[in-house]
Amino acid sequence: MGRDLTVSIDAMGGDAGPGIVMAALSRSVLRHPAVNFILHGDEAVLKPQLARRAALAGRVEIRHADERVRMEDKPSQAVRRGRNTSMWRAIESVAKGEAQVVISAGNTGALMAMSMVQLRTIDGIDRPAIAALWPTKRGQSVMLDCGANVECDAKQLVDFAVMGEAFARAVLGLERPTVGLLNVGSEDMKGHEFVKGAAQILRSVNLPMEFVGFVEGGDIPEGTVDVVVTDGFTGNVALKTAEGTAKLIIHFLRQALRRSVLGRMGAVLASGALNALRRKLDPRASNGGIFLGLNGVVVKSHGGTDAMGFASALDMAIDMARAEVIPKIIADRAEAAKPDRENAVEAGPGAAIL
Amino acid sequence: MGRDLTVSIDAMGGDAGPGIVMAALSRSVLRHPAVNFILHGDEAVLKPQLARRAALAGRVEIRHADERVRMEDKPSQAVRRGRNTSMWRAIESVAKGEAQVVISAGNTGALMAMSMVQLRTIDGIDRPAIAALWPTKRGQSVMLDCGANVECDAKQLVDFAVMGEAFARAVLGLERPTVGLLNVGSEDMKGHEFVKGAAQILRSVNLPMEFVGFVEGGDIPEGTVDVVVTDGFTGNVALKTAEGTAKLIIHFLRQALRRSVLGRMGAVLASGALNALRRKLDPRASNGGIFLGLNGVVVKSHGGTDAMGFASALDMAIDMARAEVIPKIIADRAEAAKPDRENAVEAGPGAAIL
Repeated sequence: MGRDLTVSIDAMGGDAGPGIVMAALSRSVLRHPAVNFILHGDEAVLKPQLARRAALAGRVEIRHADERVRMEDKPSQAVRRGRNTSMWRAIESVAKGEAQVVISAGNTGALMAMSMVQLRTIDGIDRPAIAALWPTKRGQSVMLDCGANVECDAKQLVDFAVMGEAFARAVLGLERPTVGLLNVGSEDMKGHEFVKGAAQILRSVNLPMEFVGFVEGGDIPEGTVDVVVTDGFTGNVALKTAEGTAKLIIHFLRQALRRSVLGRMGAVLASGALNALRRKLDPRASNGGIFLGLNGVVVKSHGGTDAMGFASALDMAIDMARAEVIPKIIADRAEAAKPDRENAVEAGPGAAIL
Repeated sequence: MGRDLTVSIDAMGGDAGPGIVMAALSRSVLRHPAVNFILHGDEAVLKPQLARRAALAGRVEIRHADERVRMEDKPSQAVRRGRNTSMWRAIESVAKGEAQVVISAGNTGALMAMSMVQLRTIDGIDRPAIAALWPTKRGQSVMLDCGANVECDAKQLVDFAVMGEAFARAVLGLERPTVGLLNVGSEDMKGHEFVKGAAQILRSVNLPMEFVGFVEGGDIPEGTVDVVVTDGFTGNVALKTAEGTAKLIIHFLRQALRRSVLGRMGAVLASGALNALRRKLDPRASNGGIFLGLNGVVVKSHGGTDAMGFASALDMAIDMARAEVIPKIIADRAEAAKPDRENAVEAGPGAAIL
C-alpha cells in the first residue's frame, strides 16, 4: 500500500464487537495519515460498516475469517482449534511481515498463547510479560508483568527488567531509565526469595541499566522509578487496585461536590479543571497492555473499552511499532550476555543464569 | 483504676517519638472517658511531658523502660535482647492482664515477633496476619494479610478468612460478612495453587461464613466483599499502591484547580466539599494495622504518623478491645473444627487441614 506502517487488527475481539473498532479507526486514520490497517473478521459484518465510512476508503483492508475466539475459550484450545479465527489471522499478518503490529481486545490468554506460537519469544526469553503504562506524579512509568506470568523466578524478573528498560527508552524516550523491583520493603532481608535473587543478579551483572533496588507499592504512583518489575500476580492486583482506587476517588469527589449548594456552584466554575482531571484519570487514555518478549509487537486492548479506548490502544500500538522496541530489547540482551570474563567472575551465579 | 478498659502504649515507637503520643492522648482521654492508659518508655522524657498536660492526670500511668526497639533492629534480635524495651513491656501488660490492648508505632517485625512470644497464637493458628480497614464505595472493608506473611499456604489463607470474618462481624458490626479471595481473575483455573487450594477448602468445609469466591484488585475499592483475603506480599503491595494512588489523585486535583482562575474560584466555593473529601481520604483516619491471630489485641500504628493519626489508631485499638474479636475468632475456629462426620466426609482434604 506504499505507506510506512501497517497495523493488523482482530476486529472480532472485545465485548462490544467490531462497531467500536470501526469508530476507533475513523479517528486513527486522521491521526496517523501514514498508517494502513488490515481488519480480520467476518466480512459480512465488516464490509457494510466499512462502506458507510468514507474516510476509511483506501486505508483499511478487510480479510475474512470464519471464526472468532470467545472470552471463555481456554488458551490451549484456542491454539489447537483456532486457526480460522480472526485473532489467529491477525497475528499471522505480523508473522508474515505484512504488518508491524497486531492489536486485539479479545481473550488475553488466547492472544498470548497464539502470539507465542506464531511469533515465538526472543532468543533467551522463556515467557513474554504484559507491560502497562501508569500515570505518576512525575509523568509516566511502565510496570511489568501485569498478568501474563502468575509464577515467576529470579531469571524471569531479570528478563522483565531488561525488556522494561528497553521499552522505557524506546516508548517513553528516556535516556537512562531507572528500574526498581517491587517488594514489601526496601531492606535487603525482606520479600520473596525470587525477588531477592533477581536483585542480586541485577546488582552483579553488567547490564546497561540503572537498577535502584527495591521499591514499594506507593512508589508506583509516586513515579520513584521509570520501570517497576514484578511477577504477574502482584502486578495484576496492583494495576486493578490502582484503577479501582482512582474510580473510587472520582466517585467520592462527585459525591462531596453534590452534597451542598456551594459545592455544586464550585463544581460548575471549576468544571474545566475537573474535566481535565477526569481526562487525565480516564482509564481509556492509557488503555492497552503490551506483550513484551516476542519477535513482534502485540497490543491487548481492554475487552470492555469503547471506541475512544480502542483508539488509544491503536495510538500505543503505532508508537510501539515506530519506536522499534524489539530490536532494542534484542540488542540489550546481547549486551548483557557478552562474554566479559572479569565481570562474569564477579557476577557469580547471575552470569550463569543469564 | 476502676475503669472499664486499659490500653498499653509503647511510647518510644515511631519516627517522631513520645511527643505525638502525648498529643494523641490528650484527644483520647476526652473521647474515651472510661479508658485508662499505661505508657511504657523513658521516664525522664515522659514525666515532664505528662506534667504539662493536666487533662491526663489520673488517666495515664508511666512505667519506666530503659531501652527502645529501633527501626533497624531485626525481629529475632529484638526478641532475644529486648526484654527491657518499652515495646516488650507494653506487650507484657496485655500478657499479664493489666491491659486489654497494646499499641505501638515502632518496628513492625519486632512487634509481631515479641507479640508471638508473649501472647502466643490462638490454638490452631500458625502465624498471625495484619488486618487493615479500607474505605470503599459501600463503606469499609477489611483486608488481610497486609504484610506479616510474605509466603502463605492454603491453610493460612483459610485461617485469615476465618479471622477476617470474625473481625468484620465484631468491628464493622456486620451480620453475615461476605469473604473473597484475591486473585487475578474470577475463573477457577487462574491464580497461584495455594489460592486455588484455599478456595477449595472454603467451599467444602462447613464454616460459618459467606464465601463468594475469587475477587480482583478492583473489587477492593469497589467494596464487592466485606473481607478480602490474600498473602502478605500481595496485600502489602495492594495497600501501599492504593494509598499512593489516592495521594496522586489529590495532587492532580490540586494541580488542575490551580491552573485557571475559574478553577481557583470554584475551589474556594467548594472548599467545604473538598475538605470533606480530603478528610475522607486522609490516611491518618484509617491508621492502624491489627494483628489478628494472637491471644491478645495488638495494634500497629504507622511509624511516620502524627498525633491525629496516632489518636485514630488508639480509637481503633479501643474499638477492637471492646468488640471482643478474639473470643469470636476462637469460637468460630471451634465451630469449624467441630466433629461433624457427614461434613468431614464431604469436605475431604479441607477437614483434615483444619
